[in-house]
Amino acid sequence: METNSNANGSNEEQNSFSPIHGPMNPMVSPLLTDLYQFTMAYAYWKAGKHLDRAVFDLYFRKNPFGGEYTIFGGLEECIRFIANFKFKEEEISFLRSTLPSTCEDGFFDYLRGIDCSDVEVYAICEGSVVFPKIPLLRVEGPVAAVQLLETPFVNLVNYASLVATNAARHRFVAGKSKLLLEFGLRRAQGPDGGMSASKYCYMGGFDATSNVAAGKLFGIPLRGTHSHAFVTSFMGPDEIVDKALRSSDGSVTCEDFVSLVQTWLSKLQWSNSLRGIFGETNQSELAAFTSYALAFPNNFLALVDTYDVVRSGLPNFCAVALALSDLGYKAVGIRLDSGDLAYLSIEARKFFCAIEKEFNVTGFGKTAITASNDLNEETLDALNKQGHEVDAFGIGTYLVTCYSQAALGCVFKLVVINNQPRIKLSEDGSKVSIPCKKRCYRLYGRDGYPLVDIMTGENEPPPKVAERILCRHPFNESKRAYVVPQHVEELLNCYWRGNSDKAREALPPLKKIRDRCIEQIDQMRPDHMRRLNPTPYKVSVSTKLYDLIHFLWLNEAPVGELQ
Amino acid sequence: METNSNANGSNEEQNSFSPIHGPMNPMVSPLLTDLYQFTMAYAYWKAGKHLDRAVFDLYFRKNPFGGEYTIFGGLEECIRFIANFKFKEEEISFLRSTLPSTCEDGFFDYLRGIDCSDVEVYAICEGSVVFPKIPLLRVEGPVAAVQLLETPFVNLVNYASLVATNAARHRFVAGKSKLLLEFGLRRAQGPDGGMSASKYCYMGGFDATSNVAAGKLFGIPLRGTHSHAFVTSFMGPDEIVDKALRSSDGSVTCEDFVSLVQTWLSKLQWSNSLRGIFGETNQSELAAFTSYALAFPNNFLALVDTYDVVRSGLPNFCAVALALSDLGYKAVGIRLDSGDLAYLSIEARKFFCAIEKEFNVTGFGKTAITASNDLNEETLDALNKQGHEVDAFGIGTYLVTCYSQAALGCVFKLVVINNQPRIKLSEDGSKVSIPCKKRCYRLYGRDGYPLVDIMTGENEPPPKVAERILCRHPFNESKRAYVVPQHVEELLNCYWRGNSDKAREALPPLKKIRDRCIEQIDQMRPDHMRRLNPTPYKVSVSTKLYDLIHFLWLNEAPVGELQ
Repeated sequence: METNSNANGSNEEQNSFSPIHGPMNPMVSPLLTDLYQFTMAYAYWKAGKHLDRAVFDLYFRKNPFGGEYTIFGGLEECIRFIANFKFKEEEISFLRSTLPSTCEDGFFDYLRGIDCSDVEVYAICEGSVVFPKIPLLRVEGPVAAVQLLETPFVNLVNYASLVATNAARHRFVAGKSKLLLEFGLRRAQGPDGGMSASKYCYMGGFDATSNVAAGKLFGIPLRGTHSHAFVTSFMGPDEIVDKALRSSDGSVTCEDFVSLVQTWLSKLQWSNSLRGIFGETNQSELAAFTSYALAFPNNFLALVDTYDVVRSGLPNFCAVALALSDLGYKAVGIRLDSGDLAYLSIEARKFFCAIEKEFNVTGFGKTAITASNDLNEETLDALNKQGHEVDAFGIGTYLVTCYSQAALGCVFKLVVINNQPRIKLSEDGSKVSIPCKKRCYRLYGRDGYPLVDIMTGENEPPPKVAERILCRHPFNESKRAYVVPQHVEELLNCYWRGNSDKAREALPPLKKIRDRCIEQIDQMRPDHMRRLNPTPYKVSVSTKLYDLIHFLWLNEAPVGELQ
Repeated sequence: METNSNANGSNEEQNSFSPIHGPMNPMVSPLLTDLYQFTMAYAYWKAGKHLDRAVFDLYFRKNPFGGEYTIFGGLEECIRFIANFKFKEEEISFLRSTLPSTCEDGFFDYLRGIDCSDVEVYAICEGSVVFPKIPLLRVEGPVAAVQLLETPFVNLVNYASLVATNAARHRFVAGKSKLLLEFGLRRAQGPDGGMSASKYCYMGGFDATSNVAAGKLFGIPLRGTHSHAFVTSFMGPDEIVDKALRSSDGSVTCEDFVSLVQTWLSKLQWSNSLRGIFGETNQSELAAFTSYALAFPNNFLALVDTYDVVRSGLPNFCAVALALSDLGYKAVGIRLDSGDLAYLSIEARKFFCAIEKEFNVTGFGKTAITASNDLNEETLDALNKQGHEVDAFGIGTYLVTCYSQAALGCVFKLVVINNQPRIKLSEDGSKVSIPCKKRCYRLYGRDGYPLVDIMTGENEPPPKVAERILCRHPFNESKRAYVVPQHVEELLNCYWRGNSDKAREALPPLKKIRDRCIEQIDQMRPDHMRRLNPTPYKVSVSTKLYDLIHFLWLNEAPVGELQ
């Protein structure tokens, strides 16, 4: 039950000439922004400053989840938004009715004309491993127009990056061999909380989702079988009317599959290895499993904890699975959704192995075990430590709501206006912005690991391979290091060129972004990536930029007077 | 800058005959559900059970945020969804390509025909105070169709109820006299995380939002002024070209408002009460404030922490405010977005009062102070304890992402099929469902407070005023109480009647839901509502229902055998 085919734009490589579709969610409109973007736009316009050329950086200040890395997501949505930015007449009317009646008509004419043809967006490749303070996006353009983009851009990047990072962290703990399924739609923060979660969890390394709409829109593989309600909706095997099942190769038809299951259940009950483990199993559960197998003989996966896993769910599942096996079908496995998952998965594995041995059903011991009850990084880690036999994890609530840290604090700060570098100070030192239109590089060491990210002024010569460069902490004067890079990667590339004739990066399909993400994570030095007490990755500035930051800081900060 | 006018359906009272618009978010479609709803639907169909009449309850198991109450939100969206439920041909094609190829054509014909004309939805009034285990919605209809509704219904109710509850809790701590502004769009979990947050925070007692799209769609009052970037985008007062400002009454024009501001700044600098507090203020900030005042002389509210609140932001604000005052305008106030909000708000208040006294500007001491830096229940509580002078709170991240508990665990459980009550057991006792098609009542005591909610079987006589009734804990046999209600409220009413001719409740406009919410909260006994260690509100079942639960439980649970 997987799908990869998809006719949607997001799954096709887009080159510089492709038209760019609108945002995934039709609710993303130029009005999906804070009111103050419009009041500021009016004040800029009134002051004749609205076309002043500005540069803004979008970045975050701290990695989430106590970790030392973040996965960058949301770029494609930002570009889709900007590519289709245009006010509708009814939106202009609403703004006119909302802003003070003293606002002049000319302003609304100006809004009506805004598109993003004079805006340029430089960004890090989506799916990259990224770090605090380094701009994820640099947006250049007329100050009033670019400010209107602030709220939607930050909205589109914040959650996307947060949930992709959460997915990557879950993958890290689960290990590469496990199947990871995102089951979060019902618990997500609203409908596109669910859609975004499915998209960005896949990007961050999950294998599949239960969300059908996300499967359709993004081509993500889909997974799912049945719920407890399906089990309880059956009263007993008597209600199964159509009992016939053709064998896998089509050669014979079993006219009474229900009886075949019953026969197997009796055999299990009196078998040497299982005797005494269970007595009467639940009949509604048995009927439900049998019906499900009749509907999906090739895809039989049963939820076994509706009544009692060991005394009912497991034996019922095995009876049906063995009956299927008689007809040449291979059952997929079971799902556990409550109780002690370590213990129950081990019991289930023993059960399967005992059956493989006693009844000589090759491979039955390897029947897949999926677990899905309120899992998160900590419970996965605990399961690993206890030992378990789970093959696949279905993860919902904690993954998609990013329960352990529900927000990433991306900000959007003015760094240049009219070619003048600007700094924002703050009562909180950590909130001081890094001024200047910057170029950003990742410097790699001899063993292939990234060593440090460095920001320089726009016109500084780029770091060169095999040439020593001094990397400075942006705010702490004593923290500095010489680096001799073996490889230099420029991080910010043009993704929206406006009317300029610059080369524009293509928007890769989701699968490629996912591949990049997995590859980038593999490339990092392991101590940056570990779950507990990871080593911070270094983020630095050039000496020239360091000096400028501190010159501007002293210049703008008023001198105190103590009396 | 407020708006209440709105042409959208959600703001009009809808009666039984009004057409019901589709969901707020166009992404809410019949495919926005878990794959297993379709695999189950196929298995039901294949077993000839798909039209079996089922009853499902949607409820949650535990109140969020360590509290003892929840606000119910999301009903209108569920009804909008169900009222417009219909598969598109491309959706059917996608399902056909996704499900195993063995699925028969007849099933897709069946899907094609599904609408919700044979479904009925009973629900508690949106905006009500609600409690665990009591169904928020009871959904009746053909089992396969109703299962398809599970995921979207749970998705639409979970976050709506969670964030409305969070808003109510913030209102509780802030007190009724404060203005509460929702500023969360940029940090919300995706675009309609933001839209839903704005809607349901308003419902839960907030006064306004910064989210323009939500203002337009829901008629929520809008608020906002300017950001740090606006301040840093100015270099100094020299760049202000158009310096003229007409007085409020239109009688005179001040040709050089910039000079008037400078004059006031000098006066402040050398005034008796403020001398020595500040020296040179930041000139880009002064220019920004002056420009903003020129654009919005009636709505001058300035963000004062870009450089230094006391040494720059406050004096610059006051100089502009006093210049405005000379021309008959009254400045609105300041916003603090960093630092020690208790201390800074008190300093600002002293500053304003000193100016009122020294320069005899009536009312200047009462200039509004808005605070907005990473606020949550705890910081509001701490501010209250320290003492502060804040009049309005702008709350974002912690409010909209429900940071302290990012999910509410609503579930959707089968309770009846073909008139047979069903129970779902579990390895976790707390996950056992309450079987039966139920009626639910809230019983009120002599002093007007709700005493207990009680669930009964469908055909039991309802509790009567002044008649003693035994209320039992559903699972704990020793917990029971006799109650003599002074008033009995039936909680579940029909909101979607399908093709039946039952009376249908109208969908009230958001403002009415908000009024109900505030009224319901006021009506609760205060010890249930307090922030720390609140008293649990009692949720009970009738004796008859108690007996049935335990009969079914014993009936379905297999008996263990220990050896």
